[in-house]
Amino acid sequence: MATTSETARSLFPALEKFLGKRFSTAQAVRDHHGHDESWHAPCAPEAVCYPETTEEVVDIVRLCADHHTPIIPFGGGTSLEGHLLAVQGGISLDLTRMNKVLQINAEDMDARVQAGVTRKQLNHSLRDTGLFFPVDPGADATLGGMAATRASGTNAVRYGTMRENVLSLAVVLADGRVIRTSSRARKSSAGYDLTRLFVGSEGTLGVITEVTVKLYGQPEAIAAGVVSFADIASAVDAVILTIQSGIPVARIELLDELQLDAINRYSHLDLPVKPTLFLEFHGSKAGVEEQSQEFGAIAADHGGSDFLWKTGREEREQMWKARHDAYWSVLALRPGAKGFVTDVCVPVSRLAECIADTRKDLDGSSIIAPLVGHVGDGNFHLVYLINPDDKAELAEAQRLHQRLVERALAMDGTCTGEHGVGVGKRDYMVAEHGEAVETMRAIKTALDPLGIMNPGKILPDQA
Amino acid sequence: MATTSETARSLFPALEKFLGKRFSTAQAVRDHHGHDESWHAPCAPEAVCYPETTEEVVDIVRLCADHHTPIIPFGGGTSLEGHLLAVQGGISLDLTRMNKVLQINAEDMDARVQAGVTRKQLNHSLRDTGLFFPVDPGADATLGGMAATRASGTNAVRYGTMRENVLSLAVVLADGRVIRTSSRARKSSAGYDLTRLFVGSEGTLGVITEVTVKLYGQPEAIAAGVVSFADIASAVDAVILTIQSGIPVARIELLDELQLDAINRYSHLDLPVKPTLFLEFHGSKAGVEEQSQEFGAIAADHGGSDFLWKTGREEREQMWKARHDAYWSVLALRPGAKGFVTDVCVPVSRLAECIADTRKDLDGSSIIAPLVGHVGDGNFHLVYLINPDDKAELAEAQRLHQRLVERALAMDGTCTGEHGVGVGKRDYMVAEHGEAVETMRAIKTALDPLGIMNPGKILPDQA
Repeated sequence: MATTSETARSLFPALEKFLGKRFSTAQAVRDHHGHDESWHAPCAPEAVCYPETTEEVVDIVRLCADHHTPIIPFGGGTSLEGHLLAVQGGISLDLTRMNKVLQINAEDMDARVQAGVTRKQLNHSLRDTGLFFPVDPGADATLGGMAATRASGTNAVRYGTMRENVLSLAVVLADGRVIRTSSRARKSSAGYDLTRLFVGSEGTLGVITEVTVKLYGQPEAIAAGVVSFADIASAVDAVILTIQSGIPVARIELLDELQLDAINRYSHLDLPVKPTLFLEFHGSKAGVEEQSQEFGAIAADHGGSDFLWKTGREEREQMWKARHDAYWSVLALRPGAKGFVTDVCVPVSRLAECIADTRKDLDGSSIIAPLVGHVGDGNFHLVYLINPDDKAELAEAQRLHQRLVERALAMDGTCTGEHGVGVGKRDYMVAEHGEAVETMRAIKTALDPLGIMNPGKILPDQA
Repeated sequence: MATTSETARSLFPALEKFLGKRFSTAQAVRDHHGHDESWHAPCAPEAVCYPETTEEVVDIVRLCADHHTPIIPFGGGTSLEGHLLAVQGGISLDLTRMNKVLQINAEDMDARVQAGVTRKQLNHSLRDTGLFFPVDPGADATLGGMAATRASGTNAVRYGTMRENVLSLAVVLADGRVIRTSSRARKSSAGYDLTRLFVGSEGTLGVITEVTVKLYGQPEAIAAGVVSFADIASAVDAVILTIQSGIPVARIELLDELQLDAINRYSHLDLPVKPTLFLEFHGSKAGVEEQSQEFGAIAADHGGSDFLWKTGREEREQMWKARHDAYWSVLALRPGAKGFVTDVCVPVSRLAECIADTRKDLDGSSIIAPLVGHVGDGNFHLVYLINPDDKAELAEAQRLHQRLVERALAMDGTCTGEHGVGVGKRDYMVAEHGEAVETMRAIKTALDPLGIMNPGKILPDQA
């Protein structure tokens, strides 16, 4: 299935002819498109195209299909499991010039954008409407990339993930046909749910060129604050009870001591170095008050500190910036090291046990790995800080990682709650899905018979 | 692709051998399985099987595959677009004996049930947990059938449809393999979203044998009531503003004068015969109060009557029973007539215009067709009351219906918000989805190469 460099190169003249300077084989450009923010070894594409319209994507895909050449969609380059590595060669399709907000339907609370629009850009466009787009993976990712990886983030506990927030997509299929996956109706029973099929398909079934997303009214009131706990089990138990009580928290984020210490240093904060929850409540003034009080009672029952309220927009934004910079703060703990980032997600009743067992594993290891998580969803992250050139360290991180994933799967969880499979989690797909992997493969083969759409991702190699 | 009766009959001895009395070719049994609650002409299967386990479904599917015989899953028999008609012959797979609640995970707020469990049965099993399952299409449908048709109902505006509320499925594929579509984790980015692919697939990709659904905490407080308006446009405008204001109504149902008059007669009520909204609010006591006041102000601005509160569980249940009996109340308007039921769904900004144009059409016709709708989602229903043996009446209903669907599609809506495609909406699939129908067909062919899974549904015949 994989292309040879020779066949790929044979289509370069045609691409250059119609894209001009928006086609490049420069080494620096290729290198830039050959790595994401993960620990996975870079792997550059053979060339990079910068289309500006769906029609140009069609032309590129048709040419690549004619030459059996892989196509790798590229958005913000912020993925975490090697989704964009050119492991079988081919063309990187950089969609960042497709950055137009096409339509804001304020009355229907939805917006249609080109795939290269970032979430911050969309929210900037919405600033006068009283609406916002909530999904927030931390990085200023593109909406196309977020749809392709089924991204989520800190406020998925309240607003859902890209699974719940994409209304419709425009997709260029492997043979160059263009489909729209759905109307703008909020619900439909009209046939197979192609929207959800392409959300999370990581470029392996087609190229997403437009995304229609749901929007939400800006909450009338927002309250945010920090509560610390004596130990991580108490913090997690407080989260579990909060979710089970139906308190509609907008964000409820756990940071362990290591992570708290790292962000204190990196973001110049002086929070107590203890297992800590960052919280945010959205609603009416009375509603936010009520939620805060209900959560406060639960926290107190679990030995939580008093709320350290972050009043005012600026203080609140500073707090969430610190949370979003968690990854960089961890890297700063050991200059020169790389972060082997991973995430798992388990049913919330198993979360305390999963985290406790994971910490036990780490206590018996030389590797440092701060923990941070969207614990309201049962989802948490570890960053194993390693020197990837040190084989013993890499092997130790891989051992710990494997135990983590197996633990999550044994608890009826998933090998990745929000980062996606890419190249990093392919080996766990059979353990998680069993026979269903062959159903996924049948769909892949049906929609991409030549195997040119981001090959080597999601599906494991066949035995 | 279609089986002949002869090849189907050749597998009867084997089915009878292992199912005994749970296999039937009796005419009365076949007739019972050959019609749903719709106006579509009955079409009985050649035999009916009553499996009790996923393993028995596997054996039946394998036998049918060997004989190229169609399999038509059958739940409560309450579908509305002819989903269960044996239009190409074959075996009806009656799943109502698969009625075990397998697991209630109260801490994780989910439950796993066999496909034949009904929504009322599930809620009865949950009575001591403080939890409930919200999706409510009116009829006491099976969870398997509701998943297969992507059902929703009165409270989807708050709790979502089966799309949002199914966590995972067990599915017997067309070749007898069994897959689980997902773990129990609340979110996952681990590969293609098979859960959402099978939700709404109407038995055409496999047989759903187990359903894991999300549960919700019983609200602390519930308030319900009735508000009537001078005209339908005012009622719809009040709904639109309610949704846009982010008031988290649990239910907001529109009934036009005709429908109101019908339920007054059928359910012995004496509500004003005006366009009317039935509402319900869920939340804390203070939250429900706040929502009611906010809605009350909007209703008053649109000339709405004072709230007629339905206090107390019994009065509230009586009101929703009347709403759920809307279809039967319509049939009682013209004894002997059939209800040609349909539903469409449009972006909420177009709802008032869509309903107004639809009413204009009806005003110019001899056909009576009350309107009722889950208007918070942009979704509404018509029941054209006809004598289906009267060709002129049927043709007139079909003409009105076609104009309704085309109007919804022109407004970027869908030909069915919640009833599904079945045989009734197949002809609109290309108009709604264009090229994407071929993507659906490719998936169908990949997962059911013999074409034995509920053939003749969803996908239009090939040109």
